[in-house]
Amino acid sequence: MTLTSDFGMRDFYVASVKAALIRHAPPDVRLIDVTHEVPRHDILGGAITLERAIDAFLPGTVHLAVVDPGVGTARRILVVHVNRQRVVCPDNGLITWAWRRLGPSNAFELIWRPKSSSNTFHGRDIMAPAAGMLAAGMPLESIARPIDNPILLDIAPVPPDSTTARIIHVDAFGNATTNLDYATLRAMGDRTFRVAGRNLGALRRTYQDVAPGEPLALIGSSGLLEIAVRDGAVEEILGVRVGDPVEIR
Amino acid sequence: MTLTSDFGMRDFYVASVKAALIRHAPPDVRLIDVTHEVPRHDILGGAITLERAIDAFLPGTVHLAVVDPGVGTARRILVVHVNRQRVVCPDNGLITWAWRRLGPSNAFELIWRPKSSSNTFHGRDIMAPAAGMLAAGMPLESIARPIDNPILLDIAPVPPDSTTARIIHVDAFGNATTNLDYATLRAMGDRTFRVAGRNLGALRRTYQDVAPGEPLALIGSSGLLEIAVRDGAVEEILGVRVGDPVEIR
Amino acid sequence: MTLTSDFGMRDFYVASVKAALIRHAPPDVRLIDVTHEVPRHDILGGAITLERAIDAFLPGTVHLAVVDPGVGTARRILVVHVNRQRVVCPDNGLITWAWRRLGPSNAFELIWRPKSSSNTFHGRDIMAPAAGMLAAGMPLESIARPIDNPILLDIAPVPPDSTTARIIHVDAFGNATTNLDYATLRAMGDRTFRVAGRNLGALRRTYQDVAPGEPLALIGSSGLLEIAVRDGAVEEILGVRVGDPVEIR
Repeated sequence: MTLTSDFGMRDFYVASVKAALIRHAPPDVRLIDVTHEVPRHDILGGAITLERAIDAFLPGTVHLAVVDPGVGTARRILVVHVNRQRVVCPDNGLITWAWRRLGPSNAFELIWRPKSSSNTFHGRDIMAPAAGMLAAGMPLESIARPIDNPILLDIAPVPPDSTTARIIHVDAFGNATTNLDYATLRAMGDRTFRVAGRNLGALRRTYQDVAPGEPLALIGSSGLLEIAVRDGAVEEILGVRVGDPVEIR
Repeated sequence: MTLTSDFGMRDFYVASVKAALIRHAPPDVRLIDVTHEVPRHDILGGAITLERAIDAFLPGTVHLAVVDPGVGTARRILVVHVNRQRVVCPDNGLITWAWRRLGPSNAFELIWRPKSSSNTFHGRDIMAPAAGMLAAGMPLESIARPIDNPILLDIAPVPPDSTTARIIHVDAFGNATTNLDYATLRAMGDRTFRVAGRNLGALRRTYQDVAPGEPLALIGSSGLLEIAVRDGAVEEILGVRVGDPVEIR
Repeated sequence: MTLTSDFGMRDFYVASVKAALIRHAPPDVRLIDVTHEVPRHDILGGAITLERAIDAFLPGTVHLAVVDPGVGTARRILVVHVNRQRVVCPDNGLITWAWRRLGPSNAFELIWRPKSSSNTFHGRDIMAPAAGMLAAGMPLESIARPIDNPILLDIAPVPPDSTTARIIHVDAFGNATTNLDYATLRAMGDRTFRVAGRNLGALRRTYQDVAPGEPLALIGSSGLLEIAVRDGAVEEILGVRVGDPVEIR
């Protein structure tokens, strides 16, 4: 199982979730923290991270993802079947990037509820037990019902005929991931890239293909076009951030 | 087993403790990090966190908690039996909140010592092996002796007739936990709350019951009165911190 | 197995590495994070941390260490047999401190490569699978070949006749580790220490042997001479940092 959240590492929240998980999961289940440092309430950031986790792990893995500013309101809780894995998360768009990139997916609404629950910590009280039960082999149908309208954010992979990509994530190293997939880019043929008024030229193979401090475009480990600065951060050198455009020429 | 400390995540100290633990613990023991980001030498902060861990886990769990500014001096090392779990920690008040809230508890002084030990890292050299041995089924009496005077901090749950609660913890989200238990509050009947000169009105159910940026009082996931600001931090909006009063009217 | 890196905890990189590891490692292998907060591209800092991990764990442990500014270039990948454990890491000096302090060691170049690999994330694509295979019992000779020239940084333990030690690491508490081993110091006889123009006097036993805010010299938990400030940080009080000298008189 994996865990992704915006709980941070300073408080006891992650451990509370794990305690609830292991009460329901098989005794030998492996718990892997993806990150708990998603910026607070950053659903898009969480969505990008969650897709990476689902892409990395094997069929059968259960993922618990909690970035949940609407906790305590009527927002639904999802169980999504994607990439032969299952995800438990709030229905607020957190599943978007996995849904768009790793599909086809099937969405369910979690109907199981504990006998009692806090109003402020559904990650511990509802989602963790549900994820634990799924890991223990509980049939999905016994705790959830199919739905066809999960909430999805307005973000999608670049279509083949586009001339603009978008920055969708900036990692802690200062490397920016875009929504342009390598397969799509290859089908486009030779292109150059322009970001924040600077020409980055053609696709490079590795960071060392440019001088220190220089920006470049390359295919990152996600299989997406990445904008980076050798030994630097794109926010500082290019002044760009999530949502900014990358011109494809 | 769980681990709570102020070691931080940047250095190798946590791994050193785990290496010492697994030499003595059963091979399949699960190690769960509660947090290693307790502020350095903040015994009260560690005590609040530790109580949450003990409350969350099942009987039989062993907890290792190390916030130990007095390492190398004559301070005792405790083994505490509380909530059908055992805790190994320095005798400096770190057990206080679990002792007061989850009691009755029994305290023991660890008498086991390794053949050699550093003077600066008893978490690794003494406490981790002891916790590992307990997890492996070593009888408590063979490594510790009963005592009746563990050091306890001057902090306790609010008594039923009080008109003041205290902020005992502020989490990384900026939510403040107080020492007023929900059961005690319910017995008091309908009340309103006043913090830092601002009336928060009656108890709310969830963060969304007030407008963004507005403060509120609600029952947090610890079962204690919590002072929070919707989409904000109490330190910034209310200017409060640990130790500050909350008026109960 | 242990993991040491400069990936940070905010992104999904650590989980990607673990996903790759567990595909090749035995199902019950224990993964222990040493730290992922080595400062970005700080090979010396990673080397000090890695040595601590190798010193702490039992024979047979496999360590994966990734601080890899040269990823995607022709730099080799090492497998090192040291202290009856094995380490997989880039050949950039990361093994230095373990090599110098825990030797004798044997170095091998990893020749195994996956069918496909990114150019930016060899930790996930090459080193993690190799470490997993070693943990699963794959003979070292089947994936690596002996070499005699691993890259080593210009850092070594203080020789017996020296009058200067160097600060090699400053931890998150602000305690500075030097390259002077306790055994070497003992052989020198009674000495006093001088750092940044301040006399620290003779070796102390514990932090409490000086007043709060005062600097001192003691043997840290690594078995090396440590320069510390009681309840303070050496960077702030003494203005020293990695590379600075400590006079031995």
